[in-house]
Amino acid sequence: MDRIAIIGAGPSGMAQLRAFQSAKAKGLQVPEIVCFEKQNDWGGLWNYTWRTGIDEHGEPVHGSMYRYLWSNGPKEALEFADYTFDEHFKKPIASYPPRAVLWDYIQGRAEKAQVKDLVRFNTAVQHIHYDDATQKFTVDVEDYAQQRHYSEQFDYVVVASGHFSTPRVPVYEGFDQFHGRILHAHDFRDALEFKGKSVLLVGSSYSAEDIGSQCYKYGAKQIYSCYRSKAMGFKWPKNWSEKPQLLRVDENTAYFGDGTSAKIDAIILCTGYLHHFPFIEDGLRLRTHNCLYPLGLYQGVVWEKNPRLFYLGMQDQWYTFNMFDAQAWFVRDVILGKIALPSIDEMQSHTQTLHEKEQRLMSDEQSARFQGDYIKRLIAQTDYPSFNIDAVHDIFMQWKKHKKENIMGFRDKVYRSVMTGKMAKPHHTPWLYALDDSLESYLEDEAQREAM
Amino acid sequence: MDRIAIIGAGPSGMAQLRAFQSAKAKGLQVPEIVCFEKQNDWGGLWNYTWRTGIDEHGEPVHGSMYRYLWSNGPKEALEFADYTFDEHFKKPIASYPPRAVLWDYIQGRAEKAQVKDLVRFNTAVQHIHYDDATQKFTVDVEDYAQQRHYSEQFDYVVVASGHFSTPRVPVYEGFDQFHGRILHAHDFRDALEFKGKSVLLVGSSYSAEDIGSQCYKYGAKQIYSCYRSKAMGFKWPKNWSEKPQLLRVDENTAYFGDGTSAKIDAIILCTGYLHHFPFIEDGLRLRTHNCLYPLGLYQGVVWEKNPRLFYLGMQDQWYTFNMFDAQAWFVRDVILGKIALPSIDEMQSHTQTLHEKEQRLMSDEQSARFQGDYIKRLIAQTDYPSFNIDAVHDIFMQWKKHKKENIMGFRDKVYRSVMTGKMAKPHHTPWLYALDDSLESYLEDEAQREAM
Ligand SMILES: Cc1cc2nc3c(=O)[nH]c(=O)nc-3n(C[C@H](O)[C@H](O)[C@H](O)COP(=O)(O)OP(=O)(O)OC[C@H]3O[C@@H](n4cnc5c(N)ncnc54)[C@H](O)[C@@H]3O)c2cc1C
Ligand SMILES: Cc1cc2nc3c(=O)[nH]c(=O)nc-3n(C[C@H](O)[C@H](O)[C@H](O)COP(=O)(O)OP(=O)(O)OC[C@H]3O[C@@H](n4cnc5c(N)ncnc54)[C@H](O)[C@@H]3O)c2cc1C
Repeated sequence: MDRIAIIGAGPSGMAQLRAFQSAKAKGLQVPEIVCFEKQNDWGGLWNYTWRTGIDEHGEPVHGSMYRYLWSNGPKEALEFADYTFDEHFKKPIASYPPRAVLWDYIQGRAEKAQVKDLVRFNTAVQHIHYDDATQKFTVDVEDYAQQRHYSEQFDYVVVASGHFSTPRVPVYEGFDQFHGRILHAHDFRDALEFKGKSVLLVGSSYSAEDIGSQCYKYGAKQIYSCYRSKAMGFKWPKNWSEKPQLLRVDENTAYFGDGTSAKIDAIILCTGYLHHFPFIEDGLRLRTHNCLYPLGLYQGVVWEKNPRLFYLGMQDQWYTFNMFDAQAWFVRDVILGKIALPSIDEMQSHTQTLHEKEQRLMSDEQSARFQGDYIKRLIAQTDYPSFNIDAVHDIFMQWKKHKKENIMGFRDKVYRSVMTGKMAKPHHTPWLYALDDSLESYLEDEAQREAM
Repeated sequence: MDRIAIIGAGPSGMAQLRAFQSAKAKGLQVPEIVCFEKQNDWGGLWNYTWRTGIDEHGEPVHGSMYRYLWSNGPKEALEFADYTFDEHFKKPIASYPPRAVLWDYIQGRAEKAQVKDLVRFNTAVQHIHYDDATQKFTVDVEDYAQQRHYSEQFDYVVVASGHFSTPRVPVYEGFDQFHGRILHAHDFRDALEFKGKSVLLVGSSYSAEDIGSQCYKYGAKQIYSCYRSKAMGFKWPKNWSEKPQLLRVDENTAYFGDGTSAKIDAIILCTGYLHHFPFIEDGLRLRTHNCLYPLGLYQGVVWEKNPRLFYLGMQDQWYTFNMFDAQAWFVRDVILGKIALPSIDEMQSHTQTLHEKEQRLMSDEQSARFQGDYIKRLIAQTDYPSFNIDAVHDIFMQWKKHKKENIMGFRDKVYRSVMTGKMAKPHHTPWLYALDDSLESYLEDEAQREAM
């Protein structure tokens, strides 16, 4: 029987497990599956860790999520088509759940599918090598629990190791003089560390926006953010000021492109992440910046030069969980031989066309549409439950509008599920005042709260 | 011609470069040498970086040294026998130089030897594999500057990648609740970050002692350190209190084994480092805790199972630079065929005996003697300039005594060089008040200072 290795049990790897289980439930014969996960539980980034830097096994910490993180987009945009929020929570919840709530949701589907025993936890993939002669991949892993190194052979490999874990860390003049903490967003954990402090955020990405908002919510004295090309341009609170480019710092001051300067206590680099796969031999290694349509991947997932290798979730992400699903179902059907691949030339030129098309996108609206269309194409080729992607697109546009209106209030809005047609229920506490982000607190309903 | 790969250009790798250059200068024919160094300069840990966690190439940051670090032992104990401090600085200096001064010294010898062009900087070794059939090592590297991955073959490999860079990071109950920063000593950079704060140091090693001293010197409000088995037992300043074992923490408080607790703002884990070589294939990988005589390494350096592979500096370190020298000269002479190795059984039983002997050492005095004796044995077998190791041993004993007397004052003491017979010169400012640790400030003499 053919064997498949899945690298990583985050949302993407879990989607792949579920995709095969769903085929099996329908009576199809599926290959043997081994999923390697270096952490001790599944959920990928959603599995919070207090650790930063290097983990207990000497390897880079995967987690980039922080305490108090709430979904940065509406849950209605990421809902699984085959497992709704209503099915999981058995009652309506609000649209921007905290991390623990989304983690619970992701796990719910995978537990229902009973696929946990396919995952070898605490097992890091260290090297993947393909042998042309045998047409097999050798996967070298380190089993942390047993302190044992071993290799196994596979016919297919699905890389689902994520790309928001290896920080891109630039240097600015004076960093080696600065007296406070300099950290990348990847190492940000608890906003309370910055209570009463003046914090400089470098970058204008989601991370800058959200980490700044966290710091504001939990009592930072002053927030500065600075951009290279374009301001985020939200209506910031009074103690948040957006500055042009950072030029340099000295012991305690940051100097900006407009000639202003500011005393700061800490610097948080919200400067993005690298696609980084040191464990894959060079010829199989995806090398790309963060974009919607990387070169080298047919239909966004098939490694063109060796279509026994797949990558999931390597795109920049408007869509997340349901996009990983669409990809995982597609990969499954390629492996099962239900989808035939064209020649390598055709694959490459197909990808090239879309990669170029991405260059011409002019607006957020067009980008979101581009990724939605990609998902539509994938879903049309498999039995993943089709859903109204245009309606999801509209949710993204509303979300954008709500952020423009009130960056500290957009998370209080609710949206209609495209899967169930039902509206979400407003949360019991506005986001800005909901300091406890636990699952228990989030799921409490009015009756319980009144009784307290 | 045979080819040798040296992994790392820290003090150990630089010693290996110098050892071969010294043979060559004496007219011997030496193999071709390639030294791979992932950082952009040499000096290993002595090459300070503000970075923490993951570096600009997505790999773990090597550096564990911090701003304001001064030698923790007398420089007279680590002096090179073939290149004295007097030769380098052209004048007497004090006994506990800051990091930049020692870095300058290490570089001085290597620059004089003109070996820099043997080092490929910005080049990380990612995989080392040995082929029994060809008796060659394949070394896979990533050239960061060129973004290029390539492999080369070597007859010998010398691993000199250090073992104080991969933090051992334990977990305590409540770490996932704690609201301040939790970091390992590896990520400690600037003591000023902790000015006015209450800091908990976990551990009773050099790191705990020295990082605590840094925090004290630069204005921490309160310092707690806690030990598992034995208190450090120095005469601490009033705002430093030594506690027994940490039991757990909550949002802002640490609880200790003696029933006391303390409000803290940050936790620094001074819990040691792992010997970690993920880039070496399993069968060649040294697996050891930090000790004076690891199993598997004949004479502390020869990989017994394949004596074409060597490890430098893998011991716990009383002696540093001159021990790396003694090792590098020995390795050189094994490679040059001047030293014959016994059978694998003999090597293993020789190592076993010494490894067991280490278990029976009862005191610091005996440990330092044990390592000194090891170095004597190495030096006796090569042309490394012999020096008075018993005199160095006495310096260690004085140093211990000076620390006991005054932990915040021992760095003001001076010692006599065993290489030149000359006394060091007291520094112009007591360590506790010398806040500027730059090379320039350190090397200023009274005349200059008075003129200022
Ligand atoms: C700070 C932050 C906030 C975010 N917020 C949101 C949000 O609000 N909503 C949203 O939809 N998305 C959000 N995302 C996007 C996120 O990328 C996806 O939600 C999702 O986690 C991606 O899933 P994945 O499985 O592709 O990758 P990951 O979640 O990164 O999972 C990859 C898994 O692979 C494992 N792995 C990696 N290397 C190895 C190896 N060598 N061997 C074995 N296992 C390995 C990891 O341990 C991990 O479990 C956020 C991302 C970040 C960084
Ligand atoms: C905080 C701290 C303070 C210390 N203070 C002192 C002191 O005061 N006095 C003293 O004598 N000793 C001190 N030491 C001990 C220190 O171990 C030695 O001084 C010395 O740096 C060890 O040299 P090394 O070359 O063996 O290792 P390192 O200095 O660690 O150098 C190893 C080199 O290998 C490179 N490398 C690693 N992996 C790879 C790879 N895969 N590919 C390519 N290159 C690689 C690294 O970049 C690095 O340059 C201290 C150590 C620490 C952590």
